Amino acid sequence: MKKTKNLKVVFLGGVGEIGKNMTAFEYDDEIIIVDAGLAFPTADMPGVDLVIPDFTYLRQNKEKIKALILTHGHEDHIGAVPYLLQEFKIPVYGTRLTLGMVEHKLLERDVKDAELIPISNKSVVKLGKFMCEFVHVSHSVAGSVAVSITTPMGIVFVTGDFKIDYTPLGGEIMDLNRIAEIGRKGVLLLLSESTNVEREGYTMSETVVAQALDKIFLEAQDRRIILATFASNVDRLQEIFDIATKYRRKVAISGRSMLNNIEIAKKVGAINYSEKILIDIDKISEVADRNLLILSTGTQGEPMSALTRMSIGGFSKVKIGSNDTIIISGSPIPGNEKDVYTVINNLYRLGAQVIYDKIAAIHVSGHACREELKLIHTLLKPKFFIPVHGEYRHLKQHADLAFTLGMDYDNVIVPDIGNVINVTPHKISKGADVKSGEVLVDGLGVGDVGNMVLRDRLELSEEGILLIVLGLDRTVGQVVHGPEIISRGFIYTGDETNFALIEELRAVVTNVLKNIDFKSFSLNQAKVAIVKAVRGYLARRIKRRPMVLPIIYEN
Amino acid sequence: MKKTKNLKVVFLGGVGEIGKNMTAFEYDDEIIIVDAGLAFPTADMPGVDLVIPDFTYLRQNKEKIKALILTHGHEDHIGAVPYLLQEFKIPVYGTRLTLGMVEHKLLERDVKDAELIPISNKSVVKLGKFMCEFVHVSHSVAGSVAVSITTPMGIVFVTGDFKIDYTPLGGEIMDLNRIAEIGRKGVLLLLSESTNVEREGYTMSETVVAQALDKIFLEAQDRRIILATFASNVDRLQEIFDIATKYRRKVAISGRSMLNNIEIAKKVGAINYSEKILIDIDKISEVADRNLLILSTGTQGEPMSALTRMSIGGFSKVKIGSNDTIIISGSPIPGNEKDVYTVINNLYRLGAQVIYDKIAAIHVSGHACREELKLIHTLLKPKFFIPVHGEYRHLKQHADLAFTLGMDYDNVIVPDIGNVINVTPHKISKGADVKSGEVLVDGLGVGDVGNMVLRDRLELSEEGILLIVLGLDRTVGQVVHGPEIISRGFIYTGDETNFALIEELRAVVTNVLKNIDFKSFSLNQAKVAIVKAVRGYLARRIKRRPMVLPIIYEN
Repeated sequence: MKKTKNLKVVFLGGVGEIGKNMTAFEYDDEIIIVDAGLAFPTADMPGVDLVIPDFTYLRQNKEKIKALILTHGHEDHIGAVPYLLQEFKIPVYGTRLTLGMVEHKLLERDVKDAELIPISNKSVVKLGKFMCEFVHVSHSVAGSVAVSITTPMGIVFVTGDFKIDYTPLGGEIMDLNRIAEIGRKGVLLLLSESTNVEREGYTMSETVVAQALDKIFLEAQDRRIILATFASNVDRLQEIFDIATKYRRKVAISGRSMLNNIEIAKKVGAINYSEKILIDIDKISEVADRNLLILSTGTQGEPMSALTRMSIGGFSKVKIGSNDTIIISGSPIPGNEKDVYTVINNLYRLGAQVIYDKIAAIHVSGHACREELKLIHTLLKPKFFIPVHGEYRHLKQHADLAFTLGMDYDNVIVPDIGNVINVTPHKISKGADVKSGEVLVDGLGVGDVGNMVLRDRLELSEEGILLIVLGLDRTVGQVVHGPEIISRGFIYTGDETNFALIEELRAVVTNVLKNIDFKSFSLNQAKVAIVKAVRGYLARRIKRRPMVLPIIYEN
Repeated sequence: MKKTKNLKVVFLGGVGEIGKNMTAFEYDDEIIIVDAGLAFPTADMPGVDLVIPDFTYLRQNKEKIKALILTHGHEDHIGAVPYLLQEFKIPVYGTRLTLGMVEHKLLERDVKDAELIPISNKSVVKLGKFMCEFVHVSHSVAGSVAVSITTPMGIVFVTGDFKIDYTPLGGEIMDLNRIAEIGRKGVLLLLSESTNVEREGYTMSETVVAQALDKIFLEAQDRRIILATFASNVDRLQEIFDIATKYRRKVAISGRSMLNNIEIAKKVGAINYSEKILIDIDKISEVADRNLLILSTGTQGEPMSALTRMSIGGFSKVKIGSNDTIIISGSPIPGNEKDVYTVINNLYRLGAQVIYDKIAAIHVSGHACREELKLIHTLLKPKFFIPVHGEYRHLKQHADLAFTLGMDYDNVIVPDIGNVINVTPHKISKGADVKSGEVLVDGLGVGDVGNMVLRDRLELSEEGILLIVLGLDRTVGQVVHGPEIISRGFIYTGDETNFALIEELRAVVTNVLKNIDFKSFSLNQAKVAIVKAVRGYLARRIKRRPMVLPIIYEN
């Protein structure tokens, strides 16, 4: 009896959570992976640099993996590529710009001999039993594609991140005609992004941003302009170079990622400007304010970015004053609001004019709103649908949107990370979950910071640590040194007002030790008794619970 | 020669920052304080419970202080009252509901014998040379007032927090007629709130929320409804009781602050319902889903709130399932987004229907948008204007709004915390700043957690702590015990994969000690050398920088 073969869709990230997008498509003995992104650490992961998907399932199926396909060059889609390629020697497919960005990452982490294969709109690539066709889409980074995967079970259409922009700056409109054709052929399964499913209507065109920027440049003719935007939004950078040229401003670039991305984009032909327009950031004093544009990173209020340093007067190359117009062409990514607004507040305090997304249309989203999502559903008419790219609530709303378009309840699955969805031409169903989750990267360590370490860090950050150091002569059962109280992050022990509390704690410890018979008590039991007594005392006395760590040495 | 007397407006909080509103008005030898609020700690203040204003200036002028006036009962306006009254025995004026909330706080912190004097709309109170008249305003807590202060220099109008609601649920509309009359008399100085100055148009009426809730109750007739809202929004609570009555649902109240506030509001007559509608949360199993409303706190995803516990199946009294409609009638306060959406995602995962502010009009702001602010400026026609209640950028936008209404540039001052503004009938100007800032409350400690402790906590949270314990026999210059490596929040030392690193660190330390001549080297110098070597090694080896603390004992 021949076992019926399924298409398996394995979600290793990007669903039920934000970031680190990674989906594996498996049929028989072949797997292709779409995207390998990272996530940025949340507040409950102090000290962690970034988060990548758990590769366990891929490790278990190493021989099957044929290729990695990248839809676009944002961190949440390519950030884990170096870590993946360190373990898996597989070819990587993406547009020239996407691969340019990946190359830079590989260099940074010293990953050599990667096989990077460029594709473009309408490219078709055969990967074992998977036939992949790439379709250009609009998004906030150039070189973004959707992937139409013809599998033995039928066509699977993966939108990647997209918006529908009828007047994009790059010139090339999302290939709606090709999408309509694919829809006519019959789509078995749609995986569509869900980021903006909570927003009614349409996302505004990037052209709106260009017009708003042009107006600001016109009005700020005699002023110096400092413009911060996302280093990866190449189309917007092109427009900014064009506007600078039009208003005869030299462009000084500040920020390493901005310099890198412009270089990459120029190399692959995604951006085009005359080298004469550039001026070194060290030479801006030679140019009149009205002839200067400083292009910078820092839209997220990143502590080390040029803009943040300017805002507190800590960037020696650019001193902010009342003749500066500062444009922040970006909106805060959730979680960064406080940092961004602190920068804006401080720039205002220095007398500058600040223009940010809440008061002018100088940023638009890169993701489709509800009406755009409806268009894609309607053009593709998929039999089955899995909403992807979003927290669980986004996916749920997107499923509801599909139902309002007439989709069957049984034909939609709202996935969560680790889910395996089995698809045949007739049925979609959930299989058993696979291992998935978060692997934390801290410095050069990958995965060595686990829950225990994080819990300690959070506990330490809440109330600090209290060390109780004492020397013990076990033979006579007597304390010969200490107890010495050392604290970090609890109270400042050097402060006179805290001397009384320190003395009280010493007394508490001494009292515990007095009642211990070291002949029958182990050192560990003594430590436990000290911790309990000290924590209890502090909770009653000042309602705090620092980590308490006794260090007992024996003479 | 007689010294010309000024009115001094002293900003001790609430300007250039969010929260802990506190303004002192000083003339000659008299001071009245308007509001005494707290702020919630930000991410860079781990372990801190709350933040109150610095009272130094008040301490220096203790004899002058005549009274504290409260505009309404939100934490950012009354949260510091217990701390203030512990030091300053002054009468407190506020509406009955506001004072009810204050009373509860005083009880919690064991502050006795406070003199609480109730006022209401149109009340006039003479406080030395200040004549204060109270004017009812709409806001997201009932019993909110603006204050018109007649001073020897002229009338100062303080809006407090407000919105203009032509169809408020409480019935009483903001007293625009009285405000118009005051404007006709001539206002010297306006202090108006600025929270929503970035928003065009008008804030929606609370009636919109009532209508949306009614519709949800109608549609969810056979389902159990769980509704989370702000415990202080008494008018909304009244409406919820009314809707529950209409749809014949019993109300079970969950959450201590919800219970407290309803009790306070009932006591002062701000809320009215039949006791028969209530059912104990422990008895809800006796009531059919369609006849039950569970009213709860938890709109901010607070970890200990009933709703958060329900969302992870950790609230034994209420188990969430597919017959639950959960309404979150509130929007996330900036900084709380992640927690709120985590709760929503998890409620969805349990199969419930979740209705939140992004997908239905079940919450409206309590603050005036641009058109409402313009109305107040236009009715009051102040000579001078100081925008208040907002980050610096809000205040700046509000100043710009005043300029578009024809106000003179010289007649507006954008204040920052600690500023003193001098006002005469002819001139407004900045004086010398006074001491101001943040006093941190952690447990029972007020002000004992300073920058040093916070810096330690943040450093500890980033990479943890590494203790290096060793015993030294100084006489022979030899290590007799250790070095022992203990870590918390750095790496898990019990994990085999980390044994190699621990050994390396021991070697680094031993090597440092080998090169030390303890006859000429102090212990402190040895410690510094160890810290330097270990941190340097770790930075190179795994790019991390934990706090390193050597503990050396001598035999």
